[in-house]
Amino acid sequence: MNGSDWSRDPVVLDAMRRAAELGQRVLGSTSPNPAVGCVVLDRHGHVAGTGATRPAGREHAEALALREAGEAAVGGTAVVTLEPCAHTGRTGACAVALREAGVARVAYAVADPNPAASGGAALLREAGVDVVGGIDEQEVATGALRPWLHATRTGLPHVTWKYAASLDGRSAASDGTSQWISSEPSRAEVHRIRAHRDAVLVGTGTVLADDPRLTARDERGAPLPEQPLRVVVGDRDLPESAKVFDDSAPTIRLAGGDPDRVLRSLAERGVTAVLLEGGPTLAGAFLEAGRIDLVEAFVAPALLGSGSAALGDAGVASISQAWRFHFERVRMCGRDVWISAVPSEG
Amino acid sequence: MNGSDWSRDPVVLDAMRRAAELGQRVLGSTSPNPAVGCVVLDRHGHVAGTGATRPAGREHAEALALREAGEAAVGGTAVVTLEPCAHTGRTGACAVALREAGVARVAYAVADPNPAASGGAALLREAGVDVVGGIDEQEVATGALRPWLHATRTGLPHVTWKYAASLDGRSAASDGTSQWISSEPSRAEVHRIRAHRDAVLVGTGTVLADDPRLTARDERGAPLPEQPLRVVVGDRDLPESAKVFDDSAPTIRLAGGDPDRVLRSLAERGVTAVLLEGGPTLAGAFLEAGRIDLVEAFVAPALLGSGSAALGDAGVASISQAWRFHFERVRMCGRDVWISAVPSEG
Repeated sequence: MNGSDWSRDPVVLDAMRRAAELGQRVLGSTSPNPAVGCVVLDRHGHVAGTGATRPAGREHAEALALREAGEAAVGGTAVVTLEPCAHTGRTGACAVALREAGVARVAYAVADPNPAASGGAALLREAGVDVVGGIDEQEVATGALRPWLHATRTGLPHVTWKYAASLDGRSAASDGTSQWISSEPSRAEVHRIRAHRDAVLVGTGTVLADDPRLTARDERGAPLPEQPLRVVVGDRDLPESAKVFDDSAPTIRLAGGDPDRVLRSLAERGVTAVLLEGGPTLAGAFLEAGRIDLVEAFVAPALLGSGSAALGDAGVASISQAWRFHFERVRMCGRDVWISAVPSEG
Repeated sequence: MNGSDWSRDPVVLDAMRRAAELGQRVLGSTSPNPAVGCVVLDRHGHVAGTGATRPAGREHAEALALREAGEAAVGGTAVVTLEPCAHTGRTGACAVALREAGVARVAYAVADPNPAASGGAALLREAGVDVVGGIDEQEVATGALRPWLHATRTGLPHVTWKYAASLDGRSAASDGTSQWISSEPSRAEVHRIRAHRDAVLVGTGTVLADDPRLTARDERGAPLPEQPLRVVVGDRDLPESAKVFDDSAPTIRLAGGDPDRVLRSLAERGVTAVLLEGGPTLAGAFLEAGRIDLVEAFVAPALLGSGSAALGDAGVASISQAWRFHFERVRMCGRDVWISAVPSEG
């Protein structure tokens, strides 16, 4: 772990992967803060402490990992997914804590784009700490940090549109039945995706048609520890008995359906990551507004040939106006294909 | 290559994979005969001859491989994708040829389901040849032999439905434009799939809307050596200037659109493998008739939200009536996802 290439040491790269996993685990519970993971290695390269961001107002990842490491941090290496903050908010600045703990090296993946918090790397370098950024940057930036990076850059929450459909793109048969197009493993993934978001969004039409509960549950139906805010958009009357109004998670209603107004309203509530769960009209409106940042499509090995399309009108009249994406990840999920797509650049 | 396990010898398994590739190369040029591949190994396990089925009336794979091997076949091993035929048609029986060539062992993948030609294994065993069947059976049966096995079992050609669509299942925008939803590598694969079929089928509506040429061409637009029969189904008037009527390949018209009548008519012409290329109405009719045996879907990373669905009505009113498939193969093709699906059992 000496010399200029210490940051490429497999021990450091392993620690970064572990830090990324730690961040992933707390995604959905940290907003408006980023879901950061941190691993502190002692001077011999052994893991001395780990941490991930606690809910807002509580410890950042670095503070937890340093506390666990104690004296072992002296002369050691801190590996963290985001550049340590130089900003003292409700908790102390992480860069200061790392300096005071006596770490010799800091490796981070993604530079902090937030003007109020950036400068941590510079502060540490001034104190004589060897700091290297950009380790596994691409992977971390598209992982647990993605929603927060998006929100920091745009001022609006990151929107994931999730849907399940047949291979021919239909999410319900012509009589409205849709249970179950996708397989149990896909439905379990949807619950995990929900748990990693701050808010779940549906239109009043979906509440009337499907009466979803919209909570994140495990395979046996028990609620997961983190529940997203349930958000119902639109103006139609809903029965008080709708499951979305039960006491298993908070629910708000937002009138109208303009995507930017909806997202601004959610940003004001500290929401960083939104899961859009349909139906086709709302998804079309968000797509047309350019407000779908990630598509999670569960494509089932079935053909329907009629029934409701998964996606409604999105302002496309000609093929040259198609909304172009990039398939970031394609894998099997049970008998389904799970496709993750992000908007194409430009 | 001695002892009872000779058929699991890597040399034999390699030869079977090579035989399967040889069969794949001639797929589309052998109907009504199966696209068989054969490798003859000498007594030391070295490749002495290879062959693949020539067009109907000419040599079978075994005859070509034996001719190339000559005396080297004596005491050697014939590795062939299909059980050698015991039937003397326009060419001699392959089982007899193998016996007369003096091979000591025969390994085949798939037993011949054709009553007129089967019995080759028994004939060889009676002559003292060591015969083992079932080598790589599953892989070979879903490869070059699939259409012929299907046609032998059902009496109707094997139907592949190929389509290109956006992730939301649309094959054209609302103004009818569709060039190009899918990427160049996907279009090149479609030409290869065409070249491996005996016939390409479209409805009159597709001719009027898209005026396709329906020939199999290489990346530079030059015709591939094998051209499928072009078949136009339906009753609408077509202009004589339609590209499907040019002289680059034969074309026939079939009135009406009943899938079973169309397929019976093609079976009478010796067609074993059909590629259904749309549009949505014809695809829906074939699906409703249970006559889609393989789906080759090219799914592009684009969202349209309106326009023509890839698949039209297929008689599905409720989700329980969905046509269920199994995703046999899912892979990237350029920027698209290429999904191969076969009907679920039962």
